[in-house]
Order: sequence, then C-alpha cells, then structure tokens
Amino acid sequence: MTPEEINKGLSYITYGLYIVTTAYDGQKNGMIVNTVFQVTAQPARVAISVNKQCLTHELISKSGVFAAMPLDESATLPFIGTFGFRTGRTFDKFAKIPYEIGFLGCPIVKEHTLSYLEVEVQQTIDVGTHTLFIGEVKDVGVLNADAKAMTYDYYHHVIKGKTPARATHIS
Amino acid sequence: MTPEEINKGLSYITYGLYIVTTAYDGQKNGMIVNTVFQVTAQPARVAISVNKQCLTHELISKSGVFAAMPLDESATLPFIGTFGFRTGRTFDKFAKIPYEIGFLGCPIVKEHTLSYLEVEVQQTIDVGTHTLFIGEVKDVGVLNADAKAMTYDYYHHVIKGKTPARATHIS
Repeated sequence: MTPEEINKGLSYITYGLYIVTTAYDGQKNGMIVNTVFQVTAQPARVAISVNKQCLTHELISKSGVFAAMPLDESATLPFIGTFGFRTGRTFDKFAKIPYEIGFLGCPIVKEHTLSYLEVEVQQTIDVGTHTLFIGEVKDVGVLNADAKAMTYDYYHHVIKGKTPARATHIS
Repeated sequence: MTPEEINKGLSYITYGLYIVTTAYDGQKNGMIVNTVFQVTAQPARVAISVNKQCLTHELISKSGVFAAMPLDESATLPFIGTFGFRTGRTFDKFAKIPYEIGFLGCPIVKEHTLSYLEVEVQQTIDVGTHTLFIGEVKDVGVLNADAKAMTYDYYHHVIKGKTPARATHIS
C-alpha cells in the first residue's frame, strides 16, 4: 500500500479548522490545527494533536493550558497563514490580530472565530511525531453564533489552502 | 458555567460520522462514533474515542484492531440506528448489512460508506468514561469516491438524528 493510497483513504475523515493558542511566562503563541475533538462529555474533555517541533507544543508543555477556536468561513488565507505558515519564534502572530486574554491566560482570538474553549491539560500522550494534549474544558464562550464553521474540506477546495509539512496528515 | 453553556461552546467543533467495527473470536460488532481523527502522518496513525460501556469497546480491547468507515450523506436514520442505537449484545447488527471481512479481520461495511481504514491498536488511553484507541493504519480503501461525507451537523439538521447517552458529548 503506497502513501498516496493511504492518504486517499484517510481523506474522507471530516475535520474543522482551529486556532490553538497558549501562553507561558509572558510568551504567547498560536497555530492552526485540524484535530480538536471532544473525547468525553462528563466532564467535558477535549484532545488536540500538536507537532512536537512547533513552538506552541513547547509552550503548552510548559503552561499546561491551551485555547481552541473554530474558524468560520470568513477566515482568509492571509489570516490563516499568519497562524499556520509562520513560526512564532521570529514573529509576533498577535501584532495585528484582535484578541483578549482568557480565564486560563490563553489568547482568545476574536476575529473569524465562532467560539473559544480554554482547556487545562490533564494527560500528555506521546504518539510519535505529535503529542496528544487532553484536558478538561474550564471556560467556553460563543464569539459569533451566526457564522458557519470552516471545514477542512472548505479550506482546501474554496479557500485553496495547503497543508503544512508538520500536519497530522499528508494532503 | 452551566453544562448547557459548555455544550453550546463545544458545539462548533466539526465532526464526521463513522461506523467503527471490530471482531474477536467469531464475535463481530459495530457502532457509530463522531470521533475518528488522524493524529500523525508518518506513520499514519488514527485515534477514536469509545465509551467503556459499549460492546465494541470490550471487543476492541480484546482484538486490538478496529475498522472505521466514514458515512456518506445517503445513510438513512434506520441504517444509522442499526449501528448507533441498538446493542450488539442482543442483536446481530450485520444480519441485513452488506459487508466483507477486511485484512485485519474487521467487518468492512460497504453501504452508505465512503472509505474504510483498518487500524492495529498501539496505545489504549483511559480518558474517564471513554477510552482512546490509537493505532497505525494497516489497510485502507475507497468504497464510494463520488459521495459526500456526512458531517455531524448534517446528521443533526438534515437527518434529524439524535445523540445517544454514551456519546463523547451532550447534544
């Protein structure tokens, strides 16, 4: 079975697109992921998969908290690119982005986002190139109730977005 | 923060809908989940969240393998109900369903499904009411390339489907 065949079979899984942020010791960062998912209802627990090479991975490992915000269909490629295709090591991703600091200290991005959830990490699972951060939802809020969630399919076919090298999948 | 507020904030996460199957010692079973997601690209690893009370949970724990098949929009409520709202403890879910046995021994449902992936479980993570089964994709195939994936949103708003009590979330 070739990698292309494997990727084709996996391409039918449905995802959204999310900004994931965190902050530690005065340093904040954020990135784009497609893997945010609720894993239990009681209590409400959420998991994300983050590449170990990303600055956000390093900061979540230290802070033990993250925020996740589903993007809506109004998000443009430059907006997504700010979080998804640049590194926070050399660039302040929040310089031109409206945000507030949330209950757990994470930046809550208020533009092109439907809602936010802030999560306290309880389990850190090594899955190889990536880490699953799993934790309990400590705060949530609705930012834009009437907008439509951007699916990963919409990102690829309407926004014409690409997949970065550190993603959980190959485009 | 009330459970209703938490659920509202979490409702903007995008999911698909999947049949997850397994077989152990001649006993096969399947269920509906909305949490199937790729967590690494190299190698291709997938995670699912399964309620501990489900028969499928018991059988995956024993067999160490599962298959996942994204549903397409043609899936009817009775079809979904066969897998999602009945227990395999007292009912053969496959009696009237076209399927084949896959490479790892899991039933591959060929109706109302876009593709299949068979996964060998490598990590079993206790997340409370549910278990995350994480493993490597060993076989995949496309069943219906031209159909459209059923999103969880479509299931709720077009199919008018409900959320069972053992789900990873509250509807």
